[in-house]
Amino acid sequence: MSTTNNSLSGMRDFNSLEVRKRNYIINIVTKLFELYGYSPLETPSMEKRNVLLGKYGDEGDKLIYQVLKSGDFLSKVNNLEGNDYKEISNLISDKALRYDLTIPFARYVVQNSQDLTFPFKRYQIQKVWRADRPQKGRYREFTQCDVDVIGTSSLWSECDLISIFSDFFKNLGLIDVSLKINNRKILEGIFDLLNIESDFTSFCLSIDKIEKAGKEYFYNFLEEKKCTKDLTKLVVQLFELNLSNIEKLKFIRSNFNSDKVKDGVEELLFILDKISNNKMDIKIDFSLARGIDYYTGSIFEVICNNNTIGSLGGGGRYDGLTKIFGKDLGSGVGISFGLERIYMLLNELNLFPDSVNNSLDVLFVNLGIEEAKLSQKFVGILRQNGISSELYPDMIKLKKQMSYSNKKNIKYTAIIGEDEISSGKINLRNMKTGDQDLLKIDELIKKIINE
Amino acid sequence: MSTTNNSLSGMRDFNSLEVRKRNYIINIVTKLFELYGYSPLETPSMEKRNVLLGKYGDEGDKLIYQVLKSGDFLSKVNNLEGNDYKEISNLISDKALRYDLTIPFARYVVQNSQDLTFPFKRYQIQKVWRADRPQKGRYREFTQCDVDVIGTSSLWSECDLISIFSDFFKNLGLIDVSLKINNRKILEGIFDLLNIESDFTSFCLSIDKIEKAGKEYFYNFLEEKKCTKDLTKLVVQLFELNLSNIEKLKFIRSNFNSDKVKDGVEELLFILDKISNNKMDIKIDFSLARGIDYYTGSIFEVICNNNTIGSLGGGGRYDGLTKIFGKDLGSGVGISFGLERIYMLLNELNLFPDSVNNSLDVLFVNLGIEEAKLSQKFVGILRQNGISSELYPDMIKLKKQMSYSNKKNIKYTAIIGEDEISSGKINLRNMKTGDQDLLKIDELIKKIINE
Repeated sequence: MSTTNNSLSGMRDFNSLEVRKRNYIINIVTKLFELYGYSPLETPSMEKRNVLLGKYGDEGDKLIYQVLKSGDFLSKVNNLEGNDYKEISNLISDKALRYDLTIPFARYVVQNSQDLTFPFKRYQIQKVWRADRPQKGRYREFTQCDVDVIGTSSLWSECDLISIFSDFFKNLGLIDVSLKINNRKILEGIFDLLNIESDFTSFCLSIDKIEKAGKEYFYNFLEEKKCTKDLTKLVVQLFELNLSNIEKLKFIRSNFNSDKVKDGVEELLFILDKISNNKMDIKIDFSLARGIDYYTGSIFEVICNNNTIGSLGGGGRYDGLTKIFGKDLGSGVGISFGLERIYMLLNELNLFPDSVNNSLDVLFVNLGIEEAKLSQKFVGILRQNGISSELYPDMIKLKKQMSYSNKKNIKYTAIIGEDEISSGKINLRNMKTGDQDLLKIDELIKKIINE
Repeated sequence: MSTTNNSLSGMRDFNSLEVRKRNYIINIVTKLFELYGYSPLETPSMEKRNVLLGKYGDEGDKLIYQVLKSGDFLSKVNNLEGNDYKEISNLISDKALRYDLTIPFARYVVQNSQDLTFPFKRYQIQKVWRADRPQKGRYREFTQCDVDVIGTSSLWSECDLISIFSDFFKNLGLIDVSLKINNRKILEGIFDLLNIESDFTSFCLSIDKIEKAGKEYFYNFLEEKKCTKDLTKLVVQLFELNLSNIEKLKFIRSNFNSDKVKDGVEELLFILDKISNNKMDIKIDFSLARGIDYYTGSIFEVICNNNTIGSLGGGGRYDGLTKIFGKDLGSGVGISFGLERIYMLLNELNLFPDSVNNSLDVLFVNLGIEEAKLSQKFVGILRQNGISSELYPDMIKLKKQMSYSNKKNIKYTAIIGEDEISSGKINLRNMKTGDQDLLKIDELIKKIINE
């Protein structure tokens, strides 16, 4: 078949099983957000071009899908020739598809700040689009899942978010996960002490690269930026500590004399104290930096132990996020869930419940008009009792109807033939076991509801 | 405040109450689709440009949002000057946002026909985008909700879809609605008999205009197209019959001698017979034409009686839909729900349940670190019992915390002060009635669960 009319590369159709699996995850996380007092928000798929462009760095800008103006988009363009495509896109496009959920969230709270109650707690589960090169696990359309509170600097918010992570992965049956936690204030304090010829963001980005590029990369970075050998050694030692959380905090306090480091340590202590009864494995990791983000306090990342799939979620505290839209609505903290990776992992570990496979409880086969009429009556009664059911629409060979039932993974097939019409009973076949029963409609309902 | 950074015109943010109300409707319809054996499908927001363009007529094409190619979209454009913007858009854009759910559905079934089980029953609830002029009830981004079965011409499918309509509006408490039903074969038969100088589509479109433009419009149309006076009179009489469904069918059979009319009447009779125990008001209406669509058999439309809001849903049977993508996968039938209008109507009639207003069950106020620690412990216990709860994050004036609770429409406010710490009891205030209770945690849980 020609592929001219196929779906776009990097964008996916989701069939019924995939939708059910995705909704299984989304339902679990949504219920938790509601239990924790977060409320839903949805923003439009498109924003004004100037709301999005310039917010994600040059590399981000390149990945933003821009939408052509409607109608004659060339009408106000005088001189196309010799112009740069970026300048032209500014003339012919005035809107773009959202790249993440954070910027639209910031735009929303600034636009509606007078009507909102702060601290404002929202969750948002929506699609985002990035013109990235598609590869395994990376798509051009994917779902993000964010939860944030803005308008408070209370560390109790961090405690709640960590608890949501913990509940979420427990509810999914993903037990072998760990939460890495750090604080940007600690990294800032260290950065100040090192007195290197670099900026803080580059420092954080170079820490992030240790995992992939090895610690030599980081050694070289510090050497290049004129860090003393002793300090370099100390920082690398700090990043590799094999100690308990409390011992790690003691180590850093006694080796790095900085007010910022102290503040960060105090915050970590507050959080560790409050979440002590938490079931999740929580590891302070001073080498967690999350350099590409705008964090200013706590930072988190969830990883799956013994698996290379990467981060399953993360987040942190930020100050002044909404300043980009002209209003400072205070400090905030938020986390996001890597739904696409969590989906892959649940598939890999076979952790989706059987229920995602069930398309239908009972199919009634169609053996003729009178049989179909009685069947359809029963179908209606089952539906009223919350049991999903359908009549096969066409009177074709029984074998073909049974094959439909098999292919669609239907639990039971019900047969109403001449005998069944006269007896008023239904011949019910369990499609997995092959067991058959002759049941009255109320017996059939009880059987299915009670199993 | 400057509006430079506001949301786009015609595109909406949905706050928590709006999301909850929308989800209330979507949950009801989704449960029904599942009960009736339909499975979910999701397609990407974007399709290749050529998949969408040319499918909705010239007017439709103008409303399609086209997306700029990534990177240097001008690199392959040699001669911009003097070119028509439509030709240019073909060079600089290769994808577009979906305009409806039908074309992506047709694209999907053709692309995946070898893996699908037919009859293929799917529902799809997703956003669509149209560059239309925004006005009351018309948006540039809105949600469509479609359910279709393709690969069978059985009229049992029509019966199921009518039953879904009926259950849906009953479940919403919208009782004063009617289903109008007709059959395109009847309209074709009449069209053939009239022997006028027009095409069938124009004939259908002129019937649709009767409602807004009056029957004179239709008279004039038929006169212009050289219809005899007797036939004109007869058709207008047919459209205004004040008879029972069965009498209407008798009238048309005795006055319009056509095989097509007979076929249409037979189909209507089959359906009426099978849905006789249906609770919905069902009216045969020969003036229902749904001219803009591609229907070939049954057609439906749901209206709210005594209300000018317009159609709340509709649909019909179509043949050969998938031929546009090179493969005929047989006859299909489907309906769609006007979610945006249904939402407006439920708001107008005050039919949303109270539950959509509840953001949280219990807020614990924050009176200090020891109080907060105990409160947070209780918050955790409530959440484990499925009761949504949160601790106010900051230790600010009690009055301000109570005001937060009021503004957010929180059901109960719980106070843990010094007294409560020593007694181990919680001071629980019902925010609506002002009633206060002093309760142990298990008493509190019982109280909330049992109400």
